[in-house]
Amino acid sequence: MNVLLNESRIMNQESRQRRGSPKAARVLAGETSQKIDQEVLLKGWVRTRRDHGKLIFLDLRDRSGVVQLVVNPQVSEGAHKVSQELRPEYVIEVRGEVKKRPENTINKDLPTGEVEVEVKGLTILSKAETLPFDMGGEELNLELPTLLDNRTLTLRHPKISAIFKVQKTIASAFRKTLKEEGFTEIFVPTIVATATEGGAEVFSVDYYKHKAYLAQSPQLYKQMMVGIFERVFTIAHAYRAEPSVTTRHLSEYISLDAEMGFIDSYTDLMDMAEKVVKEMFRQVSENHQQELSLFGASVPPHKNRFLRLKMREAQEIIFKRIKRDHRSEPDLDPADEKEICQWALEEHGVPFVFITHYPTKKRPFYTMPDPRDPEYTLGFDLLGISEEWVTGGQRINDYQMLLSHIKKWGNKPEQFGLYLQAFKYGMPPEGGFAMGLERITKDLLGLSNVREASLYPRDMERIDERLQKPKKEK
Amino acid sequence: MNVLLNESRIMNQESRQRRGSPKAARVLAGETSQKIDQEVLLKGWVRTRRDHGKLIFLDLRDRSGVVQLVVNPQVSEGAHKVSQELRPEYVIEVRGEVKKRPENTINKDLPTGEVEVEVKGLTILSKAETLPFDMGGEELNLELPTLLDNRTLTLRHPKISAIFKVQKTIASAFRKTLKEEGFTEIFVPTIVATATEGGAEVFSVDYYKHKAYLAQSPQLYKQMMVGIFERVFTIAHAYRAEPSVTTRHLSEYISLDAEMGFIDSYTDLMDMAEKVVKEMFRQVSENHQQELSLFGASVPPHKNRFLRLKMREAQEIIFKRIKRDHRSEPDLDPADEKEICQWALEEHGVPFVFITHYPTKKRPFYTMPDPRDPEYTLGFDLLGISEEWVTGGQRINDYQMLLSHIKKWGNKPEQFGLYLQAFKYGMPPEGGFAMGLERITKDLLGLSNVREASLYPRDMERIDERLQKPKKEK
Repeated sequence: MNVLLNESRIMNQESRQRRGSPKAARVLAGETSQKIDQEVLLKGWVRTRRDHGKLIFLDLRDRSGVVQLVVNPQVSEGAHKVSQELRPEYVIEVRGEVKKRPENTINKDLPTGEVEVEVKGLTILSKAETLPFDMGGEELNLELPTLLDNRTLTLRHPKISAIFKVQKTIASAFRKTLKEEGFTEIFVPTIVATATEGGAEVFSVDYYKHKAYLAQSPQLYKQMMVGIFERVFTIAHAYRAEPSVTTRHLSEYISLDAEMGFIDSYTDLMDMAEKVVKEMFRQVSENHQQELSLFGASVPPHKNRFLRLKMREAQEIIFKRIKRDHRSEPDLDPADEKEICQWALEEHGVPFVFITHYPTKKRPFYTMPDPRDPEYTLGFDLLGISEEWVTGGQRINDYQMLLSHIKKWGNKPEQFGLYLQAFKYGMPPEGGFAMGLERITKDLLGLSNVREASLYPRDMERIDERLQKPKKEK
Repeated sequence: MNVLLNESRIMNQESRQRRGSPKAARVLAGETSQKIDQEVLLKGWVRTRRDHGKLIFLDLRDRSGVVQLVVNPQVSEGAHKVSQELRPEYVIEVRGEVKKRPENTINKDLPTGEVEVEVKGLTILSKAETLPFDMGGEELNLELPTLLDNRTLTLRHPKISAIFKVQKTIASAFRKTLKEEGFTEIFVPTIVATATEGGAEVFSVDYYKHKAYLAQSPQLYKQMMVGIFERVFTIAHAYRAEPSVTTRHLSEYISLDAEMGFIDSYTDLMDMAEKVVKEMFRQVSENHQQELSLFGASVPPHKNRFLRLKMREAQEIIFKRIKRDHRSEPDLDPADEKEICQWALEEHGVPFVFITHYPTKKRPFYTMPDPRDPEYTLGFDLLGISEEWVTGGQRINDYQMLLSHIKKWGNKPEQFGLYLQAFKYGMPPEGGFAMGLERITKDLLGLSNVREASLYPRDMERIDERLQKPKKEK
């Protein structure tokens, strides 16, 4: 036994030895400004190399940002020699001393622009092949297909990775707000037995020789969970087999979903959704000024309360403003949505507005009709900047009424067994809301296509790589 | 304009009116112990009703727990009348006064057992049909199929919902630890173009007339993201078309995945995995003593460092302990795993042990062979209590070596386009680990089947409801 324990001990010793002699802990590029005149160990990727005769300048990128390295043969002949071999995306380890830059060489666009690192030793950890295009500029001016064909590489560009730094904060703000409000996080399945939310826009799965489907949303499951935890949220995968390619839709996306029971009114739901969105703004504003500035973006004004209008009121406002008469349309079209956001900004200082009371026919079967006017529902959309940010509403919580709606919407109650259980055995007044993570990311940064806000976007024409034309016979 | 704004204002006023006259904010069942002699408003589900002649006792359940209500006709005749109609799972709203219970009626098993609420008013919010079985006991003694056929209902039982309170904390601890260590949360797709991790155990998807698949893990994507964020984690859906029904496997499960670059040794990965698991223990221990006690469970001892053994050493130990000679087997079998955990507990006071150096042939193509003995890898499993909790390892980060392994493992490099990009353009030494959320939940609570730790488990025989026998012709 002791022999074996000793062997383990040796393993651990050896792994320490393999790391070489004791050396300084790694310092991140973004921390160098705080380490002036200190010796540091840096690791990262070569972003650019500029050969100025004797001196070689390298931009080193790591997860914290970028810092400039100066390789001077008079300081380290070895490092200078190795540096001549370096190309973009080489992975290197560098020992050097942080120096304050002379006043006239300070780079104000770079958070570490007041310092540079004088290189004393440089090792290549991993080599890179020649890049198919230049990645060293501030912008990566590539067409979307090229950007996506080279996604793993292009994601490394600081302006592209910035999108996903903001995205993780949006998701994090969603969770934080709801946890503080007593919501429980749940994990719900994506393989479902029936295409219960209707339509042909559903992917089918070969499930042990049965036909199953990919969930269009976590809607039914989060409602079912109100009976257990009252207030739940989930960050879910949702799938839409949209047979068209638009700038607003993905075939697989991340849905931020919340549902809460014991509401007094559907207005409680809008209060909660507003709280969530405002916390997203607060966290992005607090943590991502640098990322926002890469896009010339800023968090939209949101001090004021988000206005709440019935759909018919919104149509009336649009008619009065620009004489577009959509007052008998059953929905707002994209131009209407944009117009009403513009109105909200001008009149109320905030480009967000809740629209309630869409026609019952236009909403899903589970939406609660307004008891005072059942042609319209207690559902809502939060329109933000120019499009739908959040969709939600009060749900039908009465078993019999739900049953009749399921039938009226052309579905079969027997396909809703476990869902109907929730309502058969006592469900309080409840409702919830959902928002697409990629769409919010896109709108906050002003991206032109939602694909840019998905690490590896799925659409009709692409799963990572472009799909071949489908064969006639499978 | 003003007319419309006024209308909105009226809407909001009306919703306030609908709530009735101003009344106390809702108090949760679990808060009543702090409200002795105060009037409270409670909302929740009737868990049990006990009719003691004149007095009616109700257990009211809400998201915080259970509290006893006493309905005395001398206090409220109306409430008493309504209470006679109540059945389990009715949703009610109650006004009442919190009273300290007489010493001899204190219920020590209930966190609110020192108080009860004297009911002054009671309203039914939603009715429930008669339950198919009794839900009022401490245990819900049902066979698994019955439990799952009635999943939405049975999840309401306090002992069942407790499982998912613990589960959300496990997920939360995973995130917290890694965020603090500089990891970035990522969201990766589940629809993939090729069944890249091998085997027939993969679900196929009809993707716009192309054949696509459900990802067996987020493995390749998290590795790709090391080039961007160095340290990443994701809570992902993973799919295994296991053609058998065992107590340990699900067809869809939640995978907690982490990956980190710039490691000095594969031991860094075990350090990080150990930190994550120990934070899970800490948080569950701090927040869920009540839930653990329902299962007679406790957080396993974990003060000591988790031992690290090579697979061959573990086999040697097992041979010496119980004379089972598996010393030339290429893997540990379930009995071996259990035995070595038992050994670790006895010899080292902690039922967790990392096993490293499994044979290269038995690990996935991306696992780094030990340079000193390439027949064995720098991969590891963390065995906990009796089975695999975590699997991980250092990955091959050299492009040419990876290419040759892909071929040697029988795969086609052209199916790994975006994955190979990560290594073609400079990848530091890296590795990571993954663990199944349901399995850890199961082991921590001592559940006998992993299905109990999934809200709506998927397997060969069930998607929510039992699947019919597949038809011969689709």
